Amino acid sequence: MEPVIVVNLKTYPEASGKSALNIAKIAESIVRETGRKIIIAPPQPDLALICSSVSIPVFSQHVDNVKPGNTTGFVPPEGAKAAGAKGTIINHSEHRLVHADIEELVERCKALGLLTIVCTNNIRVSRATAMFHPDYVAVEPPELIGGNISVTDANPEIVSGTASAIRSVAKGVGILTGAGVKNGRDVAKAIELGTDGVLLASGVAKAKDPRAVLLDLVSGITD
Amino acid sequence: MEPVIVVNLKTYPEASGKSALNIAKIAESIVRETGRKIIIAPPQPDLALICSSVSIPVFSQHVDNVKPGNTTGFVPPEGAKAAGAKGTIINHSEHRLVHADIEELVERCKALGLLTIVCTNNIRVSRATAMFHPDYVAVEPPELIGGNISVTDANPEIVSGTASAIRSVAKGVGILTGAGVKNGRDVAKAIELGTDGVLLASGVAKAKDPRAVLLDLVSGITD
Amino acid sequence: MEPVIVVNLKTYPEASGKSALNIAKIAESIVRETGRKIIIAPPQPDLALICSSVSIPVFSQHVDNVKPGNTTGFVPPEGAKAAGAKGTIINHSEHRLVHADIEELVERCKALGLLTIVCTNNIRVSRATAMFHPDYVAVEPPELIGGNISVTDANPEIVSGTASAIRSVAKGVGILTGAGVKNGRDVAKAIELGTDGVLLASGVAKAKDPRAVLLDLVSGITD
Amino acid sequence: MEPVIVVNLKTYPEASGKSALNIAKIAESIVRETGRKIIIAPPQPDLALICSSVSIPVFSQHVDNVKPGNTTGFVPPEGAKAAGAKGTIINHSEHRLVHADIEELVERCKALGLLTIVCTNNIRVSRATAMFHPDYVAVEPPELIGGNISVTDANPEIVSGTASAIRSVAKGVGILTGAGVKNGRDVAKAIELGTDGVLLASGVAKAKDPRAVLLDLVSGITD
Repeated sequence: MEPVIVVNLKTYPEASGKSALNIAKIAESIVRETGRKIIIAPPQPDLALICSSVSIPVFSQHVDNVKPGNTTGFVPPEGAKAAGAKGTIINHSEHRLVHADIEELVERCKALGLLTIVCTNNIRVSRATAMFHPDYVAVEPPELIGGNISVTDANPEIVSGTASAIRSVAKGVGILTGAGVKNGRDVAKAIELGTDGVLLASGVAKAKDPRAVLLDLVSGITD
Repeated sequence: MEPVIVVNLKTYPEASGKSALNIAKIAESIVRETGRKIIIAPPQPDLALICSSVSIPVFSQHVDNVKPGNTTGFVPPEGAKAAGAKGTIINHSEHRLVHADIEELVERCKALGLLTIVCTNNIRVSRATAMFHPDYVAVEPPELIGGNISVTDANPEIVSGTASAIRSVAKGVGILTGAGVKNGRDVAKAIELGTDGVLLASGVAKAKDPRAVLLDLVSGITD
Repeated sequence: MEPVIVVNLKTYPEASGKSALNIAKIAESIVRETGRKIIIAPPQPDLALICSSVSIPVFSQHVDNVKPGNTTGFVPPEGAKAAGAKGTIINHSEHRLVHADIEELVERCKALGLLTIVCTNNIRVSRATAMFHPDYVAVEPPELIGGNISVTDANPEIVSGTASAIRSVAKGVGILTGAGVKNGRDVAKAIELGTDGVLLASGVAKAKDPRAVLLDLVSGITD
Repeated sequence: MEPVIVVNLKTYPEASGKSALNIAKIAESIVRETGRKIIIAPPQPDLALICSSVSIPVFSQHVDNVKPGNTTGFVPPEGAKAAGAKGTIINHSEHRLVHADIEELVERCKALGLLTIVCTNNIRVSRATAMFHPDYVAVEPPELIGGNISVTDANPEIVSGTASAIRSVAKGVGILTGAGVKNGRDVAKAIELGTDGVLLASGVAKAKDPRAVLLDLVSGITD
């Protein structure tokens, strides 16, 4: 599976509105230059605008297991797709979902042709989640999220353990990791530990020079 | 206060993505032709794109009382503003909020210069909500939402009762009503009962000819 | 209105199960000795047992705005009443409720003959809540809850301000305050500032000698 | 594994307060007479009282993944245990939980010596849940809950399919089924399809003669 760098802009002021669009365009230019794969997940209100402005895959940060229609202010998978999203993050640690809803959302997204990245917090939950066969499972130990030490240094066992646990029950499910990931070295280590890439946020969203950070990150992907 | 027609597109497939943009442009052209006031609240993922595409005020359907930053998939008021929104609906009956959060969100929006429409379900809750001094309180009896009979016919007392209850405790707070509102006659009746306009959704969002419906609605506003 | 001391045992291990019963019996004996009024709100699973064991009023810590029946694990007002509760706390800062649900719960409790204490966080929310005419509004500034400084010292203006704000819109609604309340002096000060008593938790629930603490607290009530 | 009948009294008025205690005592007497295994889950406020009144195992209907202490109105596993519960239902379809919380609650309950019954809605979710190794997984198709046709007649494949799916990934996890279960014939069928018993509610909770219904149910268990 081709390694990927997934950038979640969360709701950082430095990465909302025009700044979100700016970062998306930088990512697009780096993809063009390097041929590597970057996915960007902008703030929900910016989704359609960024989908219409860049050619790299844009993901929704979240979808709700609600029906399209009388669900004011929510985002059903159909709404993410209508906005132009190619996929969605599901069950991010900051926006967790009821168990049965994760399963239904993965099914609904598959039917719509939306790719899915389901977030998890440990090996056991990762393995259970893999049985829903999303496109990716992204394991992030909650205690390391937003910190300065990459999960690949702080807890390499959870990364390799998740990778082997998932591979043993569900071949074909991609494996991402995140929490504290900041540079190309972390990306290289994540891949070495058996993953298909990383999910990160503040390292890019709050960067003074997002281009330099993204270039560094993709440098961790080698053939 | 100038009467207003607030169109909530909810998450209707007929009013998401390109269709949301289409309805927003129709509303803009009618405002240009008639000089009446229309506010449009598109699906959350379409917010920034529509804000950048039309000159009429565009509102967020919902905001969350969360801080900008580590709040993946939510929409803090700052995120709605960065997307270009001029205001927001708060506490829609399909997306209700904790009491203290309503008060805080009204304050946060005021500080950001975002207009607020807080939804309520009866006279008592409307009067209590008016004490937070949002720009508008919009009363919608839940049992009539999505139905065929306009609140102005089914329960005119709740409309006039809300109007007088709010005026007695909080002058300057605009009053809207909704639920079953479909045409210019309903709009005229709502204004006659003491409101400053209507909040409606399916009547426009699911219309075969949104232009005709919107033209009919604004015809209910007379000098 | 007769001053009251409301003791919320929350879910402290030191005040759950047999320990909850023990504290309730101590409170009962102090009421018998002093003639003062104490209300106790034990952990939810201990409610019926304590109601059947002591003669002082026992309150539920929370009720949910759900129908009795297919609502596994929730506590509708009818369930609290069937367990023997004389009233309930509503919208505690640790278990907040949607605005419209607070209004409905106050109405449902009134119809069942259950007394209501609705918690609030500031003057504005307190005044709005008083318009629902619960038996008591209990204002607790969130930043002081669980701390060592009593709200009556740290922010006496919020106490007196809430008292006068509520009295101006809804005579007959009792006023409580809480956050950091620890002893008889704090109780006396709360009453002096215009309230009808206090709501407290850890001061009693985690006390090594709950009898001594409760005796001290009631000493703050004078004729 | 010894077959079991788990009776969830939900919040039915016919099975709250004194009526809950009455049904628990009937169940206890039937266990004494027949030697079969019955677990009862009363309304949350009745938990401690019923635990102290009967010798059969009493379960909490729900636990929250919160810490004991500042969590007013919630029920942490420690609170259920302090009340005397022997176990708990987790993630009932009427009170669903976030995925990671299910895993943590199973771990917390194990550490406390509380038995766990985790509810699920289909085969895929059941298999994923079994990987958390609760004591029981209870599959209940949502569309059949509260209806008149037993899941064992309406959808025997989901019962046998869940049983074999769970057995293939997690030996030692008990399997229950529910939804529409009413009598001994349904119990016998459930066991025949590979389960270790049933989870039911209204059939007992709303019965005019709970003793007759419970006797009929246990008659479905044969050696």
